[in-house]
Amino acid sequence: MKALRVEKRGIKVREIEKPECGPEVVVRVVLSGICNTDLEIARGYGGFRGTIGHEFVGVVDESPEGKLLGQRVVGEINAGCGECDLCRAGDPRHCAGRTVLGIHGRDGAHAEFLRLPLENLIPVPERVADEHAVFAEPLAAACGIMERTPIDQDKRVAVIGDGKLGLLCAQVMALTGAPVLLVGNHPEKLRIAERRGIETSVPEKISSRKREFDVVVEACGSESGFATALELLRPRGVLVLKSTFHGTTEINAATIVVDELSIIGSRCGRFTPALDLLKKGAIDVDSLISEEYPLQHGVLAMERAGQKGVLKVFLRP
Amino acid sequence: MKALRVEKRGIKVREIEKPECGPEVVVRVVLSGICNTDLEIARGYGGFRGTIGHEFVGVVDESPEGKLLGQRVVGEINAGCGECDLCRAGDPRHCAGRTVLGIHGRDGAHAEFLRLPLENLIPVPERVADEHAVFAEPLAAACGIMERTPIDQDKRVAVIGDGKLGLLCAQVMALTGAPVLLVGNHPEKLRIAERRGIETSVPEKISSRKREFDVVVEACGSESGFATALELLRPRGVLVLKSTFHGTTEINAATIVVDELSIIGSRCGRFTPALDLLKKGAIDVDSLISEEYPLQHGVLAMERAGQKGVLKVFLRP
Repeated sequence: MKALRVEKRGIKVREIEKPECGPEVVVRVVLSGICNTDLEIARGYGGFRGTIGHEFVGVVDESPEGKLLGQRVVGEINAGCGECDLCRAGDPRHCAGRTVLGIHGRDGAHAEFLRLPLENLIPVPERVADEHAVFAEPLAAACGIMERTPIDQDKRVAVIGDGKLGLLCAQVMALTGAPVLLVGNHPEKLRIAERRGIETSVPEKISSRKREFDVVVEACGSESGFATALELLRPRGVLVLKSTFHGTTEINAATIVVDELSIIGSRCGRFTPALDLLKKGAIDVDSLISEEYPLQHGVLAMERAGQKGVLKVFLRP
Repeated sequence: MKALRVEKRGIKVREIEKPECGPEVVVRVVLSGICNTDLEIARGYGGFRGTIGHEFVGVVDESPEGKLLGQRVVGEINAGCGECDLCRAGDPRHCAGRTVLGIHGRDGAHAEFLRLPLENLIPVPERVADEHAVFAEPLAAACGIMERTPIDQDKRVAVIGDGKLGLLCAQVMALTGAPVLLVGNHPEKLRIAERRGIETSVPEKISSRKREFDVVVEACGSESGFATALELLRPRGVLVLKSTFHGTTEINAATIVVDELSIIGSRCGRFTPALDLLKKGAIDVDSLISEEYPLQHGVLAMERAGQKGVLKVFLRP
């Protein structure tokens, strides 16, 4: 089968063996989405080698006891050891022995087939199109913010970054009734949020809004957004870090102490609330779709996904 | 009156005017304590000029309506504008227009007299000695951690730094029933905690305890403790920053996102819980007292307070 692989010498579409069923389930990938984390991995983040990709919708092709066979599914990306306290409590997202689809120790979704444990797979409601279902993973990540810090109509929220993740975060936060400001550099991307009633701004214009926000979500994927984000926070405000980027950033610890700020990391969310939102049509994902390529043109698709102005790029095996 | 002042050319004991009563209350200082923040201010932190010192016990000397006159008091150090939402809710600690005793816009406690709003003053219970009451401010700061993150017997806590603040934080955390590890370089300081049943370690020996702790309190006053502190945290763990030090520190944002860590600043606490603990004798503060100097030897006292192995240094006007 074809698979988009990160190798020592770069990124390639290769012909590799189809995964075997074993104790896990084999899913035939229908559509996969390119995430900024894929681009970071291709640049060396995390040291991963193998098939990348962790956003997908597919159909169960082989299942050890026949469960879910033929069903359309999406899949949570963390596969736990199954034995530690976290896994036994049903949440392997921080299992120390976990593998992560296309990110850590496990081949990913930009391939004709992938393999995941049965318990990771969630059937997709009939009325959710493939092109929407493939957003379950990044949308779950956006919803995951609320697992880490409460958001409600009394919280003034700013989201830094008008990329795919920022646009999903802004929409999810706005659904809580919180007034949300999306900060970004791309008028055409900001308009997607504006159509949902979300206030937007360019970075140059937010200096007057220092110390205004209770929660700032950093979703711009670079350290440049960090200092701005801290400045926007009122005392006891919360900075949520969403994007995994390569490198370090400098912080002034005294500011964090004096204003009693919180910096909170947020990674993966659960899929069920995300699928519910997609089913209700509560999130505009259509506007986030830029282009689709056949899997065999995966390298080109990755290049396009990294270019300015491009939002979600799909691969179809 | 005499006052220990930070001036452009350094730190000096000066003869200055006694503060006038006005709408605020004048307190005759009985005893004041030197905090590491005083040392940081003398090094340039915050750009403060004037009388330093914010830990004190005193007697009300002049009061506009005679309230509290002659009473022994301690005092919360943040004096708010009295008009903003925060002040009206009774908590001026983050009032944007606040002054802070001996730290920002207001002369402090290393003086014969100081001035504070009436509402900042809290009478000291009779059975609490002056030498204990003067710890109300730093002990309140230690208690303030619990306003920022819950601590209970199910939380594994590490405190980095065996100075005055670290020893107070470790004792307060241990009172919740949480197992506490205090990490420091000074055997004689660590023994103070050990006598209270607190486990201790030197930094060299904690590499085997990575990812063990739910909460790590950074109270060592330098960026060197920062990386160690993060390594000790389990996923979704909380790093509490307590010390205000001059300068920046580097963080790896990806670690914070992947492990979903929280970094939380904590500054001032409320005095009432601290006075309750002192009244009960629940905290060993006697072991934290190193030396006492007359106020006129304030410069020498500051030098001593900055030396290795020295804990709390008192000034007596």
